[in-house]
This record gives sequence, C-alpha cells and structure tokens, in this order.
Amino acid sequence: MKRREFFRNGFLTTLGLGALGSASAWGKEFSTNAAQAKNIIFLVSDGMSSGTLNMADILLRHKEGKPSQWIDLYEKNLVKRALMDTASASSFVTDSAAAGSAWGGGMRVKNGSLNVGPNGEKPVPILQKFKTMGKSVGCVTSVQITHATPASFCVNNNSRNSMADIAVDYLKLRFDVMMGGGLNFFDPKKREDQRDLIQAYQQTGFDLVRTKSEMMKTKGDKPIMGLFAGDGLPYAIDRVNNPELREKVPSLAEMTQKAIEVLSKNQKGFVMQVEGGKVDWAAHGNDAPALLYDQIDFDMAVGVAMDFAQKDKNTLVIITTDHGNSNPGLFYSGQANRNFEKMYAVKASNEWILNQIKPGFSNSQVIELLESHQNIVLKEEDAAAILASYKVGSDGMYNPQNLPFMPLAAMQSKQTGIYWAGSNHTADYVELAMFGPGSENLKGFMKNFELHNFMLQTCGADASLLMA
Amino acid sequence: MKRREFFRNGFLTTLGLGALGSASAWGKEFSTNAAQAKNIIFLVSDGMSSGTLNMADILLRHKEGKPSQWIDLYEKNLVKRALMDTASASSFVTDSAAAGSAWGGGMRVKNGSLNVGPNGEKPVPILQKFKTMGKSVGCVTSVQITHATPASFCVNNNSRNSMADIAVDYLKLRFDVMMGGGLNFFDPKKREDQRDLIQAYQQTGFDLVRTKSEMMKTKGDKPIMGLFAGDGLPYAIDRVNNPELREKVPSLAEMTQKAIEVLSKNQKGFVMQVEGGKVDWAAHGNDAPALLYDQIDFDMAVGVAMDFAQKDKNTLVIITTDHGNSNPGLFYSGQANRNFEKMYAVKASNEWILNQIKPGFSNSQVIELLESHQNIVLKEEDAAAILASYKVGSDGMYNPQNLPFMPLAAMQSKQTGIYWAGSNHTADYVELAMFGPGSENLKGFMKNFELHNFMLQTCGADASLLMA
Repeated sequence: MKRREFFRNGFLTTLGLGALGSASAWGKEFSTNAAQAKNIIFLVSDGMSSGTLNMADILLRHKEGKPSQWIDLYEKNLVKRALMDTASASSFVTDSAAAGSAWGGGMRVKNGSLNVGPNGEKPVPILQKFKTMGKSVGCVTSVQITHATPASFCVNNNSRNSMADIAVDYLKLRFDVMMGGGLNFFDPKKREDQRDLIQAYQQTGFDLVRTKSEMMKTKGDKPIMGLFAGDGLPYAIDRVNNPELREKVPSLAEMTQKAIEVLSKNQKGFVMQVEGGKVDWAAHGNDAPALLYDQIDFDMAVGVAMDFAQKDKNTLVIITTDHGNSNPGLFYSGQANRNFEKMYAVKASNEWILNQIKPGFSNSQVIELLESHQNIVLKEEDAAAILASYKVGSDGMYNPQNLPFMPLAAMQSKQTGIYWAGSNHTADYVELAMFGPGSENLKGFMKNFELHNFMLQTCGADASLLMA
Repeated sequence: MKRREFFRNGFLTTLGLGALGSASAWGKEFSTNAAQAKNIIFLVSDGMSSGTLNMADILLRHKEGKPSQWIDLYEKNLVKRALMDTASASSFVTDSAAAGSAWGGGMRVKNGSLNVGPNGEKPVPILQKFKTMGKSVGCVTSVQITHATPASFCVNNNSRNSMADIAVDYLKLRFDVMMGGGLNFFDPKKREDQRDLIQAYQQTGFDLVRTKSEMMKTKGDKPIMGLFAGDGLPYAIDRVNNPELREKVPSLAEMTQKAIEVLSKNQKGFVMQVEGGKVDWAAHGNDAPALLYDQIDFDMAVGVAMDFAQKDKNTLVIITTDHGNSNPGLFYSGQANRNFEKMYAVKASNEWILNQIKPGFSNSQVIELLESHQNIVLKEEDAAAILASYKVGSDGMYNPQNLPFMPLAAMQSKQTGIYWAGSNHTADYVELAMFGPGSENLKGFMKNFELHNFMLQTCGADASLLMA
C-alpha cells in the first residue's frame, strides 16, 4: 500500500481493514467518459440526522402544501443518491473539521484537525486546487466564515479553534466570495492580537460588507468578504420574526444567490461551498424550532443552486451533510400530528426564548413567553425548574454560554412529540445527492474522503491535483 | 377525485393536501416497457431506524472485516434506492399494521387496522391477489406468523390484536409457506376458544413443523405452517449462544432459504415476505445487543434472497423497513470506538439478562451477569437500582412483561455510546432498495401505499387487480 493511501485510510487500516478504505479502487471505477462539469456547488446541512431532513419535509408538506426542495428532487428522480460513511481518522464519529477535511483534503484526519493528517501531512485544500485551475471559488455559511466546514475547503490548521489565524489566512488566499458570520475574528477590539483585519481587508482591495444591502450592491469586481454577525448568524426563525435582523442579515439562499451571480462570471467556472451551519448548532441544543427552520433555510439555498444548475447545465450540485447530530424524530403517540403541528406557528428558537429570560423573572413571565412564541404550555413547576437551571455569572447576569437548553427541550418534547437521542454527533451514514454532469459516477455508498477526487475528476483536473 | 383514491390518500386529503397522495399520478409514470418479474421477495426489517442499519454495518466491517449485505449492494451499485414516507391514515407516525396494509392493500388505513380502511373498505390483500394469478405465496418472520407485518399481506381484520382469528384465517387461505413464531395462537391450551388448530392444520393437509429439523425435512408437496416458538422467536444473539435453541429454532436466513426452495418450484413464480420482526421489538426495549444482532440476522436473509435472485434473474428483491423506531445512534465521545467495540463480543440480549435475574438476587450477582455476558461493568448502586425496578407479580415472581429495560439501557448507553431518542416508532422516511426486473421504475421518493400497485404491475398483473 502506498504511503498516502495508508494515511488516508487512517484507523481502518491500522485495524487491518485496509480493504475498506480503498480510494484508489474507487478511482479506477470513475468513468472518464462521463460529462465534465465546469462548476460545482457543494451544499452541506451541517449535522443533519435523517429525522431532521424528514421532519422539515413533513412540516413543509403539511404547513405549506409543498415538499422540501431536497426531497422533491428525489420524488422527481432528478438526482442520484448515495449513503455516505462519515468516520474520521480517530473515530467512528466525526466532527465537522475532520469530515470537511475528508472532502476538502481527500484524506481522513483526526477530529479537530483541518487538513492536517495523523502524521502531519498537509494536503492542499480543494478550493486552492480549483483556484489553481483558474476557477473562481468561495464559501457561504450561516456560522462563522472561519468555522470548521468552510475552513476545511480552504486552509490547513492543526486546530479548528484557530479561527483568528484562519481569518488571516483568508486575507492571503483572496478567494472570490466568502460570506457568513464571524466578524469578531476580524475586529481589533475582539481579537487577542488586536490586529485590525477589517482595515487590512479593505486596504488590500476586498469589498468587506456587513449588511444585506451592502452585499446586494457589490459587483464582484473585487473579492468579497461578508461578515453579517459577530459569531454565527441568527437562527432563521429568529431572523424572519425580527424586522431589524430581516433587514440586515441575508438568508443562506440570498447569500448563495449573490455568490453564484458573482462567481459565475468566470468563463473558467467556479466551485463554492454552501453551509447550513446552524442546523448543527440547533441539534446540539435540542432546539426543535431552530433546527427545522434552519433546515428549511438551507433547503431554500438548495432551490437557488438547483435553479442555476438546471439552466446552466454545466454545474454539478452536491447536497449532503457531514454527520448526524442527536438523531431527533417525531415519535408515536395518540396525538402525534397535533403535537407536531405546534411547529407550524412557532415564532422563536429556544435560544431566543432563553436569552429573553433575565434574573428576577417570575414563573408566569416564563410561561407567557413560551406560550406566546411557541404555543408551549408550561406548568408552574416547569417554569420554576427552568429558572432554577440558569447559572448567574460574576457580573450578576445569566451566562449566555450556559443556558438551560436541555431542561426546556425535555419539557417541549412532551408537547411537540419531537425527541432526541442525545446532544452530539452520531456515526450515522448520511444522505448524499448529486445533480448534473458527473453525478452518473456516484455509487450507492461512498466514503467521505472519496468526494475529494470525485469533484476534481468531474471538473477534469490534472492527475497531479488528485490524491494518490 | 375517485372515491377509492380519496380513501387511499387518507388524512392527507382531509387536510386539503390531496396532491400529495396521488398514487394514480405515480401509476402513469410506470414504464410498461420495463422487464417483468416472475417472483418477488419482499424483505422488511421491522422498525429499523437509519442508525440501526448503519451501526450493524459498522459492526460487521470492524468485527468481521466485511460490510453488511444491504450496504454492500449500495457500494457495488447493484440496487436502486429510494426514501419512503411511512405515514398512516391516522398519523404521521405509523404502526406496523397500517404500514404493512399500505403495501398489502394499497391504501392507507388507521393505525392498528389490517387492510380495513377508514370507512370500512376491505382491499384484497396482495398475497391473495398473487395466489389468484397462480403464484405460490408465503411469509417468514422472526415474530408470530400472525403478527401485523405478515398478516398485512394476507388478511383483512379491524385489529392487529386478533391474532387467534388470523391463525384461523390462515387455515382457509392455505398459503404455501408460512413460518415464524406464534404457536400459542394455534395451541388449544393457549387459545381462549380452546380450538385445536394444530390438529386442524394437520388434518386438512398441512405440514405443521415445530423444529428446524422438521422444517428441513419438508418437501413442499403440502402447504407448510412452521411454528418455532410460542410467541416471537428468541433474539438471534440468544439463539446462537444457546445450543438447544440453535438446534431447534431456524434463523431468518434458514427459513428464507427453505421457503425459496419450496416456493420456486412453481413455474408461475412466487411472492414472499420476509420479516425481521424482532428488530422492532429490540428497539422498543432499547436493547442494543438484540437490535444489532437481529439486524445482522435479517441481513443474512437479504444475502440468501440476493443469491437466489442473482442466479434466477426473474426476481424483484425489495429491501426496506416499515418505520423508524427509537432512532438510536452511536454518539460522539473521546472513546466512541472503544465503547462501540463492546458490542463485538456480547453474548446475550438485555431481555435474556433481565429474565435471568430472580427475586433474591444480590447486587453482585447482577454485576457478574452483566460483566460476563456483555462486558458492561455496573456500580453497586446501579445494580441495586435495577433490582429495585423489578415488579413482583401476585405469584411472587417478577413480571416478565414488565422488565426494567429502560434503567438497564440507560446504564448501558454510557458504556456502549449507543443512545436512543425514545422507545417507540418515529415518522422518519426510510430506506427502500430494489434489485432485479422492475427496479428501474423506482423513484427516489415513494409513498408506502404506492408499492402495492408497483409489485402487481412489475409482475404483469391484470389491471383489475390494481388499486384504482
């Protein structure tokens, strides 16, 4: 076995199961007669368990009388589908950094690493490769633009936590469109090194935009860095219910639309990643309203990508997730439908609700908040239990990093029918769908790292750019 | 909308969403040019959430160095895949009776009903239709042969609970091979009406077999009724670890093999259902060892069916489940692999363990039992909590219907990394795979009731047999 193959296969190989991680075997099956793509739009609903996709579809069908864009593609037989194994080099259960690196670098790395292999290998990230080929490249996300999933297509770093360094890396990379949250990692008042990256981006010829209207005005004659929030963007359900946020913060679909408009001007084509990153955050918080409406927000970006690709005919669209998270499901009961229907009219995420509750709140204020925004009716003792679960910080305020998500979720589950198996990632195999030229090469079961060469080969990359 | 169409669409229609349940729209897409199948083998892993399929595959790859048969079919691109919506006429979340009836009768019925529609409709069950066409038909299952899933292909009944009546129905139906558990519903000492169905089956010309060796000896010149346990068969993990059970009780794969041998003698072809019914029971009990090894037991039956179909070339193989259950997953942690690896060497189901514990057991006896059979190490207080959770019946014994599954599962989860979102069915869309002639007609997303006409049309059934 070649040395690089050994690294890519990671721990499977060390267990004597090398045959299981054979990317080269897959490579040989790739049909070189297949139509080539000029562009790739790679859409990731981060941390999307099977139930997340399904419940969002059920919600749309019954609330709005139409399927989700994603499932509609299945129903109309427009895409090829696979299951994808998501393991990392260190575990059956990946994190987003290792999962993204499998796609971005073509090898399995340990959880937490961004394109740095178990033995220090630093494979060239895929958007750098596509840039070399003359294509325009970019990422849009609902979390920090420096976060694991977009970063995994762009940089090498030992740790996904080095977001301040990654913001500096992006300055050098000069990718064409990078948009999401994460202003804090560019702001001299928030950076440990006090470096003013905002100024640095502006002085070196970027369009640095901070609002939806600024974004709409950019023409794409300069590289775009869009930073619409200090950390992650607000959840979609909170954005649409707040006029100020609706005005200022673009949706994932709007960012995707703008990015396509700019990137597609390049005659040599483009490659972009679109991440619904807060689907994962919502799952970690067992936050059902946030989860379902951010999945729907992602789904609208799928619609934008498909609209472009169906007209363009030279674009491979890849729709997937990097791993499961919390495995939620709508559970059986005599009133499963009535329970689930509460989700049709929710006006706020659990996170928003919990942030409204301040020291000194009464039980009845908590009850009123839940009833008016989520149609969830709490008992006095439930409201008291939530209040008792808050931790007061040294400043006498509640700690926003430590809100009582789990007690609220447990109470909510009884009234919505949506239950969770935990609050972290799972080893589940995940959905992988493809539309357009190259999709005919998709096998029914793929390993995540195989997508790296798949994308490059679909765009006719030189063999020297492939992982051996 | 035609009256029958209205009924089939069920509650979707009553919500004004008739367009969503259009079987006739699907029917028009069916390619009549497609190759026709002579035989159908329909395999159901009952109550299989996505995580169940995935964890069984991960287990096999790392314990035995080979993938599951099911995922291997995906990897080798041998099957077409779809997601399938599983709703019933009464709920987003189906039970096995309504899910089976959607396939068996071609319309959505309320939970609990077997091919009896919301307005009393009694569609002819699919195996009766195929029998009319001159084919041999049958069912094999790891639960009672009178249980919801096999019964849904055979009979009409207001209630799945009428298993004693269904045992009588089977006498009249004289299907070619029916095998599983459920002897209690045939035994005069166990039946409320004291009717001796065992004698009745023997006197009317059935081969009634009760052991694996009796099963092996049957030649198929008479209809076969195989009853290998009073209720459900033992879990696979318990069968293989008990020489007596191994001797007496066939595996699902062995029953499938025998049924194919007998049924395939008919020149006009055959249609059979194979149910891994105890996968669902294990999920209800959050019984991880039972779940994974019964899924693997089912997977071996998939292998038997595929071996036949690949040689025969006239057989449509359908592999699916009727609904999710409990949405288990292997969860993220620093030692996810080491935790999961405990499952490689387990020797008993939780059910078996809990049945060994008798009144008077000490904490240390409980600890010893778990450690020796599952490599699970309990603390004194955990063992005490399990003992305290037993309910003593009026006979001074523990109630075998009310064992402390949930306390044990919660303790086990911390050591295996396998967690559950509940202990009941979910609304998840499920895997649906097809091999062989007709599979080219599978869309990427199907509604469960569409499979009824799909199977009939694939076998070239007369239009009069189709649901309108």
